[in-house]
Parts: sequence; C-alpha cells; structure tokens
Amino acid sequence: MTDQIARIDVPVVREPAIAHAIRELVIGNRILAHQGVLDAFGHVSVRHPANPERYFMPCSRGPALVVADDIIEYALDGTPIDQRGRPQYSERAIHGAIYRARPDVKAVAHNHSPAVIPFGVTNTTLKPIFHMASVIGGDVPIWDIADEFGDATDLLVIRNEVGASLAKTLGTARVVLMRGHGSAVTGRTIQEAVFIAVFMQMNAQLQLASHQLGGDVKFLSPNEVASASAILLEPLGQQRAWQTWAHAAGFTDV
Amino acid sequence: MTDQIARIDVPVVREPAIAHAIRELVIGNRILAHQGVLDAFGHVSVRHPANPERYFMPCSRGPALVVADDIIEYALDGTPIDQRGRPQYSERAIHGAIYRARPDVKAVAHNHSPAVIPFGVTNTTLKPIFHMASVIGGDVPIWDIADEFGDATDLLVIRNEVGASLAKTLGTARVVLMRGHGSAVTGRTIQEAVFIAVFMQMNAQLQLASHQLGGDVKFLSPNEVASASAILLEPLGQQRAWQTWAHAAGFTDV
Amino acid sequence: MTDQIARIDVPVVREPAIAHAIRELVIGNRILAHQGVLDAFGHVSVRHPANPERYFMPCSRGPALVVADDIIEYALDGTPIDQRGRPQYSERAIHGAIYRARPDVKAVAHNHSPAVIPFGVTNTTLKPIFHMASVIGGDVPIWDIADEFGDATDLLVIRNEVGASLAKTLGTARVVLMRGHGSAVTGRTIQEAVFIAVFMQMNAQLQLASHQLGGDVKFLSPNEVASASAILLEPLGQQRAWQTWAHAAGFTDV
Amino acid sequence: MTDQIARIDVPVVREPAIAHAIRELVIGNRILAHQGVLDAFGHVSVRHPANPERYFMPCSRGPALVVADDIIEYALDGTPIDQRGRPQYSERAIHGAIYRARPDVKAVAHNHSPAVIPFGVTNTTLKPIFHMASVIGGDVPIWDIADEFGDATDLLVIRNEVGASLAKTLGTARVVLMRGHGSAVTGRTIQEAVFIAVFMQMNAQLQLASHQLGGDVKFLSPNEVASASAILLEPLGQQRAWQTWAHAAGFTDV
Repeated sequence: MTDQIARIDVPVVREPAIAHAIRELVIGNRILAHQGVLDAFGHVSVRHPANPERYFMPCSRGPALVVADDIIEYALDGTPIDQRGRPQYSERAIHGAIYRARPDVKAVAHNHSPAVIPFGVTNTTLKPIFHMASVIGGDVPIWDIADEFGDATDLLVIRNEVGASLAKTLGTARVVLMRGHGSAVTGRTIQEAVFIAVFMQMNAQLQLASHQLGGDVKFLSPNEVASASAILLEPLGQQRAWQTWAHAAGFTDV
Repeated sequence: MTDQIARIDVPVVREPAIAHAIRELVIGNRILAHQGVLDAFGHVSVRHPANPERYFMPCSRGPALVVADDIIEYALDGTPIDQRGRPQYSERAIHGAIYRARPDVKAVAHNHSPAVIPFGVTNTTLKPIFHMASVIGGDVPIWDIADEFGDATDLLVIRNEVGASLAKTLGTARVVLMRGHGSAVTGRTIQEAVFIAVFMQMNAQLQLASHQLGGDVKFLSPNEVASASAILLEPLGQQRAWQTWAHAAGFTDV
Repeated sequence: MTDQIARIDVPVVREPAIAHAIRELVIGNRILAHQGVLDAFGHVSVRHPANPERYFMPCSRGPALVVADDIIEYALDGTPIDQRGRPQYSERAIHGAIYRARPDVKAVAHNHSPAVIPFGVTNTTLKPIFHMASVIGGDVPIWDIADEFGDATDLLVIRNEVGASLAKTLGTARVVLMRGHGSAVTGRTIQEAVFIAVFMQMNAQLQLASHQLGGDVKFLSPNEVASASAILLEPLGQQRAWQTWAHAAGFTDV
Repeated sequence: MTDQIARIDVPVVREPAIAHAIRELVIGNRILAHQGVLDAFGHVSVRHPANPERYFMPCSRGPALVVADDIIEYALDGTPIDQRGRPQYSERAIHGAIYRARPDVKAVAHNHSPAVIPFGVTNTTLKPIFHMASVIGGDVPIWDIADEFGDATDLLVIRNEVGASLAKTLGTARVVLMRGHGSAVTGRTIQEAVFIAVFMQMNAQLQLASHQLGGDVKFLSPNEVASASAILLEPLGQQRAWQTWAHAAGFTDV
C-alpha cells in the first residue's frame, strides 16, 4: 500500500494540460487536508481538461497522502478508465452527477469539514457573514438523503441515482450541505473549489461564534455577496491563497 | 527512563503474529496520541492473537512515546507475564474485565478525550450525528463508579471487581463513557478501536457545536446507524484512515 | 511567482534605518501569520522612517511568505514608488488613510482574525477583559462600510474616500473593527501593532468564553485599562513577546 | 538579546542539586509554553533546594526560549543575587510572597492560560470535573486586586504588599485565580506545579463545554477530589506526564 507514497514527483508521462491538472489536483488534496477541511476521508476531483465526459480523482487514499500516481481517470458514470488494480473511493457518484448536471463545474471537493456539519443537522442556515465567504453564495442548500431514499440508508452517495438527487439540490449553487455527512463544493477550477471550501469552513466557525455572542447577527446583504464574490473569484486573490496554502502543505515551489 | 525510547524498531524476537500485533499496538498508541484522543494518560491494549486469555499493553509510558520494548504480556486478571521490572499502568482492570466479558473484543482503548468527557457529566447523551460516527452505535452508555462503589473513590478502575462493573455497563456496546474520567472503546482489531475512538471524539465536537446552534438537532436514525456502521467497519475505509493517521504520527512506511 | 520566496535574507541595498524597518516588517508579517491573526490575506505596513509621506508594504503575497524583496514603497495616496511589476494589495487605502489622519501611527496591520470578526457583526462590544488586552483601549469602535457607502459594496477599502471614512471611525483609538470584514490595528512601531493585534485576538477568545459561562462579566475598569496599557506599551514587555513570537515563526536570530 | 538562546546545555558550573533544579526549571518553562499554559508571558520559579530563603527564576524571557544561563537567583523579597545585567520579570512579588507564606511550596507557575481566565471574571467557580483535575483541589479561590488596592491599578503584582495579599487569598490551596489577569499555581516540586497547571487548564476547557451542553453538571465529590488527588500527586503518574510533555517540547533525553 505504501510504494506509491514516496513518488510524489514521478507521475506517468501525460500531456501537459493533463499533467498540470493532475498536479493541481494533488496539491488541492493536500491543501484541504492541511487546512482541516478533509481528514482521512473526503475526496477532490477535476474534470478532464480536454474531454468533458471524463474526470480525474485519486484512488482510495487519505487526501494528505495523495500523489500523482494515485490519480485515476473516470467516465462520468464512475467507471474507471485506468484503474490498474488501485482501490477506489465508493462515492464517485457525487462527482459524476455534478459534472453531468453542471457543465460550468470543473472541480468538486467532497468533504466532512467539522465546522460545517452542524449547519446540516440544525435549523441554522449557513450563509456569508464576512466578505471572504461571499464565495459560498447566499443561503447554502441542504440535501437530506432521507427525503428521497428513506431513513435506512448508509448516507453514502454510491449510486448515480443518489448523486443525481444531490446535484438537483445543488442546483445552480456553488456548494450543497449533505445532512449528517458533509458537503460538496464546486469550482470552475481546482483553485476555486479549494478557496470556497476553506472559506466556507471559516464562515461556519465565525457564524457559530457570532450566534454564541447572541442577539441579532448581521450577515452580508445579497448585494454585498454578489459584489464581494465577483472580486474574490478573480484569479489574483485566489493565487495568493493557493501559494500560501500550498507552501504550508509542503509545496514550497509553488 | 529514556533508554528504551530510541529503540523503536528493535523489538525482541517474537512470533510473526505477535510481532505484528505489537507493531499495530505501538502505532495505535501513537496515532491516538497524535489525534488528541490520548494525552500523557490513557492506554491501548490488544488481545493475544493466539491465546485469548492474555493481552498485550505498554508499561507505564505516555502513549506518544510507546515502543515495542515497552509492551508487557498480561493475564486477564492483570498479572504481568513478563514485567522485567517495568512500571505498570494501574488501571489494567479496564482491559482484563472487558476481554473476559466480551470474547468478540480484541482491542481496548481507554482514554480521556477532552471532547468526550463533558457527555459523561451532563444529561446530554452522546449519539451519532454524522455517518462516520455511526460506529459508536446508538446512545452511548455512561458508567458512574459512584453508583456501585460510592462517592469517595479515586475514580480509577484498579480492582477487577470495578472493571467487571464497567464491563457490565458496556454490555454489548462498542464504547462506554466513564463519568468524570473518560471512556473505554473496543474493537475487533486495533485499527477498529482506533477508528471508533477518533470518530467518537469528532462526534462529541460536532454534537456540542450543533447544540450550541440551538433548536432541534437531527441525529442519525437507528437504521442509518446500522447501515452506515456496517460499511464503515469493513477493512477498506479503516485502512485508509489507519495509513493516513499513521503517516501523520510519523510512521511513513505504513 | 516563486523566485523571490527563497531569498529571505537578500534585500536590495538600502539605508540602515529603512533596511531595519523592512526587516521588522517582514518579521511582523510572519509573526501575525504564525499567530493566526493573518491567514492568506490581510497586510501589514510601516511608515517610512525618514519620510512621513511614504510607507512600506509587501506586494500581493500571503503574509506567511513575505520576504524583503516583496516590499514596495508607497505614497500615502496608494501610488507605488517602486512597483517593478509586482502585483499589489488592492486595499492600500486602509493604510494610507490612517497614516494621513494619524501622524502618531507608524504601523498598520489589517487582518481577518477569526476570533475578532464576530464582535463586528453582533451587538457585543469588544473591550478589555484581561490586562494584556488593555492595549486595545476601551470599547472598540466598529466601522460599517454600509453606513456611508450603501449595502451593495464589496466591503473592500480600495478607494481613498472609503479609507478616510474608516480612519474617521478609528478616530484616536488604536484599533477599529470593520463589519463583516476584519479590523485595522495601529501602532507607534511594528512591534506595537503586532502586540496589540495578538492580544486583541486573545481578548476576543476570552470574551466569547466568558459570555458563554454566563452571568455578569467583569471587564477591566477604565482606570485599569489606562494603567495597564501604559506599562504594557513600554518596550521591555513588547520585546519579550516579539522575540518569542519571532522565534516561533522561524526567526531564531532575533 | 539572542546570544544566550543557543546555549541550552551550557549552564555555568553549579552544585548538582542546584544544577538539577535549574534544569527542571528550564524544562518546566518550555513544557508550559508548549502546552499553551504560558504564552510570551508568565513565569515559573523554583525554591532554592538548599536555602529556603532563595528561589530561582528566569530573567525576562519568553518561557519557550528560556535556557539555563537565563536563571537568576533571588531573595524572597525579589532582590536579585546574581543579576549580571539581565532584565528581570516585574512580577517577582507573586513568587516571593507565596514562598514566604507557604513553606511547603517549592515551585510557582504564574500564567495567563486562556482557558482559565474566564473563570476569574465570571460567577462560575472553577472546580474539578474529572479525576485528573482533582489536583486543583475543590473550588478555586479568586483574588481580585481591586478588593484591596482599588480599581485603578495596572493589575500587576509588583510590590511585595500586593504579593502578600495574593498569597493570603491562596491560603492553603494549590492554585489561585487572579481576576482579569491569570493564575498562580503551586507545587511541592516543579513537576507537580506543571502537572497541576496543565490539568487546571484542561479542567477549564471541559467545564466550559459541560456548561454549554446545559443542565446540571456533575462535578467530583469532595471525597473523590481527596482520593483522586492523593494518588495523582504521587510521583509515578507525574513522571509519565513529565516525560511525555518534555519530549513534545524538544527534550528527547528525559
């Protein structure tokens, strides 16, 4: 199980655009693990840069340990193209379903961020409380697997039918909470998905603390959300965050 | 006191199955210390792979520093088989009593996880709030030493009679809280006990935050607990977690 | 984007007073990042030691990665004197406006400290609860960009007119909260601004916990704030903190 | 200011008992800094092993950086015996006053543990909620400098008269909270003072979380406090903690 771990910088030969996407995917996995958004579970994927009917995602590996050789190419229905015996994440349907429903989405980060989960099991709606989190959009929708599939599931999104249900609740939003489970975060790039996931987590922390202080909490107005997110989703700020977080996660050449 | 610390990879010669169990035990101790489930106290044991009347546990040493040479073989009544002058944990009765009462249990982790202790001293029942924590089962039972032994004890489980009382409250569950003290977590393997201990701790953190948000909290349904735990207690996911956590704790060859 | 990162100790040739200010600025950036006051965003500046109409601030770079070669000299209106193609922080108006309005201020730290932000979006006033935080003064004022510029802004302080509004709310205080955004901390030296920022953050943490315990909270009296801050703003204690934090951030020769 | 930092293992020649006490003092400082009980401030002292009218304490230095050459010998009135130009902590009166009033005390740790301070500014009494914290005794007394010296002090314990007032409130207890400031922890050895300080901090964290869960909180009974603390204050457990924490703080030869 360990042979691949040490070979961080020895991916198989791939076309430059694919090699780039895979490198970003590896870094994104490790950043989210280092930032505490991912623990031993959760997974990040990126749509194939040349073929929108495919995406790349690691084999079953803790995100903190993912290397380029772990990356498997998938069809949108979750069929591996180049499995080569590597174990797979079971919840591939989260990724494929969102890529099918949302052509604009190029990256998906499914995570169990501890700060975020409480907002999926209570009546308190997660919504932007500071400008950096404007990128989560307005009120974050919650998908409860029990609504469509009953209260005896294992809560996992394994079948494509279940993934489609999740994608339907996501709708045109950037993120969707999964009750008693975690969330799915999307981006037009891996950097964007990582950026949104980190600031969604921080927003959850700030929102809990604000409610604890009590009284009325002043959230961003819808117009503020629109204005601030428009600026924050431009590349410059995201690159600053990406470089900072990549260094912290050990990629000192970013 | 320090001579043994540096000799991490020089255990005495042992049969392969025993050497394997001891290596897992060392890693499990260090993982739980690194994950904050154990501090300088608490202890993890594993039942002897060939002799169910024996178990292995470190000598009195902080779990973060345990090495193979620290491991002592014990009879179920807490008598050391090969003490060789090493100081012992005093609460061996926790382990022996559970191994006696529960033939299915192969590993026990006694811990003072700070997130969990508040659920042993209040009326709020610890129960699964997200799928990963389905492995703790349903409502977690609480054992209060004062119920059977009065309110003047030192709260320690030193005598086998006290251990038997704890094991009785554990019953057929996987975990039991100890009022004003900590908890005991069981597993069919060391990896399973570690897995359950880590996600019990995370569940406690999430449950506190959810109650702080206020209003009704939606816990997993009993059927969801059964379905999700059935999948999570299979080896694949546990191995992913074990590898990730072992690396984080310094075992980069796992 | 990475070439400059490794050259921590190779600043361009500068006059000693300027080289000293820039070195302090680099250390201050990294201390505040290490202490969690700054994440990938926020920025620290220092007024030019010889020309009060100028200040120094890093180019657009995560504070944890700032090096001497990143430092740009600015006019108070935010015009770069020596940009040399480096990308800039957009919110320079925070710094210039405060330096204009407050001749006594020699350093400014704009930050998104997570502990502090909740006090800017609720009715709970941030004020000193322990002696170390007496340096934040009394009740900390809150500036809400919406009051003067409407509820459709991106919350950023980019135009000098907006910066002037912020500086007006700051008034003669040492710190000002920015609703839904963060805060601006001032100092008569970089060390002082860093000191105030760290203890403001800790005060926010302590104040939240105290309110959670419930009942009346005993804050410092106005006279205690005056007496304690007078002592704490003397150099000796600040140097002790600076040395400790600089070492923790990797500057072991301070 | 930095020359002494690197010379961790080059103390001046001293009698073995004194050299031992100073080595323990250095380790104790760094443990408490590493455990978050001390930040850049706070200080730990030890009574002279041969002369009860003297004690040892570092010069003005962040506890995380203290080395043997920083240690100054003091008379109980705070007069340095061997200052050699080194800057001093101003609050020496905390230490001298307690050593005078309590012949049984051999070590004092003054700290600003963030978890503990809220219990000094609210009506919630800090008291043992789990067995490890039985060492703090029963209800922890609070000393408010304003009671005797008015509400215009800087809250610092600089004059011996103020230290005597603090020692009076401490009485026969092991710890005393200082309103709006921190606490003073005593021990019969440095290891004991460190042990009590760490578990007082953890008790504060657990007690806050328990109150947040709401409803009645079950604390240890007075008899449980007496029984548990009697065992925990014996050397074996303390040595296990000391070794674990010393390793974590970088002293891998303990």
